Amino acid sequence: MALNLTGKKIPKLHLRFDQMIELTSLDVNKMKSPTKTIHKKAGKLGRRDFFKLGALGAALGVTGASQVAGNAASKALDKATDDTVFKSPGHDPFELKPGYPYRRFDEINTFQSTGPMRRDAKVIPKMVKFIWPGFDNDQVGYRQVDWALSKAGQSLKFKMKTLEGKWDQERFDFTMLDLKPTDMEDDGKKKPDILKILEGNYVYPEKAPFKTKQEATDAIKRAARLYGADLVGITPRDERFDYQAFFDPKNGRRNWKDVPFEPKSVIVMAFEMDYEAMTAAPTHVADGATGDGYSQMHKTSYQMAVFMKCLGYQAIPSNNDVGLSIPYAVKAGLGEVGRHGLLITYKYGPRIRLAKIYTDFDFVEYDKPIEFGVQEFCKRCMRCADVCPSNAITKAINPTYEPEFQDESNWFVNPGFKKYYNNLKKCFDFWVENGNGCSSCISVCPYNKPDFWHHRLVDKISAMLPGPVHSFMREMDKIFGYGNTYDEGAVKRFWSSKNKKYLGYK
Amino acid sequence: MALNLTGKKIPKLHLRFDQMIELTSLDVNKMKSPTKTIHKKAGKLGRRDFFKLGALGAALGVTGASQVAGNAASKALDKATDDTVFKSPGHDPFELKPGYPYRRFDEINTFQSTGPMRRDAKVIPKMVKFIWPGFDNDQVGYRQVDWALSKAGQSLKFKMKTLEGKWDQERFDFTMLDLKPTDMEDDGKKKPDILKILEGNYVYPEKAPFKTKQEATDAIKRAARLYGADLVGITPRDERFDYQAFFDPKNGRRNWKDVPFEPKSVIVMAFEMDYEAMTAAPTHVADGATGDGYSQMHKTSYQMAVFMKCLGYQAIPSNNDVGLSIPYAVKAGLGEVGRHGLLITYKYGPRIRLAKIYTDFDFVEYDKPIEFGVQEFCKRCMRCADVCPSNAITKAINPTYEPEFQDESNWFVNPGFKKYYNNLKKCFDFWVENGNGCSSCISVCPYNKPDFWHHRLVDKISAMLPGPVHSFMREMDKIFGYGNTYDEGAVKRFWSSKNKKYLGYK
Repeated sequence: MALNLTGKKIPKLHLRFDQMIELTSLDVNKMKSPTKTIHKKAGKLGRRDFFKLGALGAALGVTGASQVAGNAASKALDKATDDTVFKSPGHDPFELKPGYPYRRFDEINTFQSTGPMRRDAKVIPKMVKFIWPGFDNDQVGYRQVDWALSKAGQSLKFKMKTLEGKWDQERFDFTMLDLKPTDMEDDGKKKPDILKILEGNYVYPEKAPFKTKQEATDAIKRAARLYGADLVGITPRDERFDYQAFFDPKNGRRNWKDVPFEPKSVIVMAFEMDYEAMTAAPTHVADGATGDGYSQMHKTSYQMAVFMKCLGYQAIPSNNDVGLSIPYAVKAGLGEVGRHGLLITYKYGPRIRLAKIYTDFDFVEYDKPIEFGVQEFCKRCMRCADVCPSNAITKAINPTYEPEFQDESNWFVNPGFKKYYNNLKKCFDFWVENGNGCSSCISVCPYNKPDFWHHRLVDKISAMLPGPVHSFMREMDKIFGYGNTYDEGAVKRFWSSKNKKYLGYK
Repeated sequence: MALNLTGKKIPKLHLRFDQMIELTSLDVNKMKSPTKTIHKKAGKLGRRDFFKLGALGAALGVTGASQVAGNAASKALDKATDDTVFKSPGHDPFELKPGYPYRRFDEINTFQSTGPMRRDAKVIPKMVKFIWPGFDNDQVGYRQVDWALSKAGQSLKFKMKTLEGKWDQERFDFTMLDLKPTDMEDDGKKKPDILKILEGNYVYPEKAPFKTKQEATDAIKRAARLYGADLVGITPRDERFDYQAFFDPKNGRRNWKDVPFEPKSVIVMAFEMDYEAMTAAPTHVADGATGDGYSQMHKTSYQMAVFMKCLGYQAIPSNNDVGLSIPYAVKAGLGEVGRHGLLITYKYGPRIRLAKIYTDFDFVEYDKPIEFGVQEFCKRCMRCADVCPSNAITKAINPTYEPEFQDESNWFVNPGFKKYYNNLKKCFDFWVENGNGCSSCISVCPYNKPDFWHHRLVDKISAMLPGPVHSFMREMDKIFGYGNTYDEGAVKRFWSSKNKKYLGYK
């Protein structure tokens, strides 16, 4: 469960909505480098002046009172603004520029498939150092306890021996055992059958009847939420996003011929990661949230695959394997892709992990892609690019069709899509140096906020007034101390028991 | 994540606190059968009169506004009443009456260990029917979709092959692999070692330094919450609660000699179960919440065992195995035992599941048992005993030292403790008839409430005024439709997408 603790106390100010709009109309469109210039502006204005700007300042006051007002306020605002904010892109978000050949992704290009290790000896020591960084008990955020949090967080993923993260033949167990009910009219001697039933690893021979597609859709989404998903969307299978080949350390490459059915739909789920832990990026504490996110992904995607099988349909639980989660999430209406290349959801921003289920069930209401202002926002914000420890994130103002850097190696780039091209090799090199994942780009993203009403309010203003307000928001964020990295205080706040009430009453 | 939806709209009334106290002073102490008599009173007074009683009625108004007021109100009340409400029992909650021999629990007596199946042939067909009930698509709550929710919910438990629920030799894998860091300075050829590290199934050879016991305690509890525990307490190991023998289908009995270390502490965790699903007891939908609760238990207890091992300490993840969770939870300050024999926590009532970790780490601040009025409350309420479909729950007003029923079999009863003795055989027989678990006693328990301020307010009044108010609360609960069983509406509300916003914005 994510905690919404910022540990900040902000003086409350009050200003009329119209005054706020007026005060946020800085014109940055002509600036060559919005980032730098706004930094200067921020410098000139100074903290006091930003407070004068009022409503947004007040909005960020994290107190019982403001939240109380906010709960009501946001409800009203929701009704008033939803139609303005949420738009359909009206085109395929993954249009390929004519003349570019599209190459489906090959799993051997993911470093966690161990493909790069096997094909480039130089990667091996990096990988080992990444997996075994050791720790420094004098460095807050990198002590044994911080490291333990991160290791244990992801441990379930490996315990489960799913397609992802299992490095032997079980990795390719696509088996969909069929059992007839009669097999189970049992004198007690068929324990293995009973165990199979308990394990749910079979496709029930009858298909569950649903009166309408909506009824089926509601059932799938409610089950996913019961099992721990925070967001759920459903989209038709899109082969462009499916790996063209799977990496099998034992048997070499495998492909879709090895999959015993043809998927028709993909259920995409997002899992919120702990806000408080994420504020400690890029330390091991932030990686604890990432690690538990992986374990949660694997738990819920497995349960959902069993759920679909019990309904009589084939299903494969998929995490960072089988296909690309982010484009599927975009198609399923979960959010937009940001400058950092991560999915930005409306409710949690990029502070989520994704998992999915491939199934041959298609009697559902499919979700549609959505836009709520992220593209415009990312042009001006660049917080992620500024803090990225390895400068892996581009500072190009607009998305491009090609990366600025050379992809001279086995690390995969697929040009021809209009997007921000980031350098995965640089990113991974910092992981090695850091001895863990990083997540700085998640932590500093202004969309990464607890679900406090004032942040959602800011999102809505942002979507209604693209442009000026974005630069303003970016600066407010920094002023109020959101999205610091290497923040010892964040690590200490995470571990502190203050306000946590672990017994429910104290 | 648990949803707090009652789907009820209640007219709001306002009354001063003192008026409310006055109006709740019905004297039921002399009544022979409080339950029946209060039923009559309730009948005479009628719903309208109960509304007149005012504040508690108002308190149950589930609306934004009342919640808003409540957030503030409850904060104030917390400060004012905590000391009055929470008391230490001041004695061992598990005192054995002199003259009674205490028998430590033998795992072979748990039906899920398959012990009874193996030792009593009559249990086998019951067990099979329980595991494979089939379903009826014309019976809401017992359709294929409801059944799928329940099966898939618990599926992770079996996938993980933990001590509980795995019916072969792996069941007794207590292995605590030791790896030295040097083993991991790896040329890439030692993949199995790397995998072991990734799996976290080893005890790190150095012990993490903690300056104070409080620092260590905070670290353990925060990690548990990050991994999904809602409540966490720590208590010294108490051998009375540990199974005297373990059931091993392959090798027969096993005991603590097979455990490679001596546990000193037990970390006890509670996991909230979905409120909305639980209102659908005893259908498969409620069992979906139970099932996911089991999967969550297994996920987090495994992660916590890995966490302790990474800190350099031995640890065994324990769910419904190794030892008895409820007494350990009481000792760890998580709550009190109710009439139904379940743990009642302050924040979630009995709507939780328990898991624990045995470890040899003992540099911690141990928690202490707590009382907040449950014992007095259960004497008068009896809601669980009234609705229990198999009359397995005693209606004795006071706890006793012996069961009223004969325990003529291999089903375990341990007399000599002052408690409510319930008939597990009758309970299980209904599970078979129901084709699943039941949870009616959880669903109807007045302590089973979403964490709305007014329910916590009621708890506090109850703890301050034991007696009269309890009977009143019990009736209010029924009048406002809490704790119905076999409620088709509850099943439909669960599956409905109304107010669920699966995409975060709609």
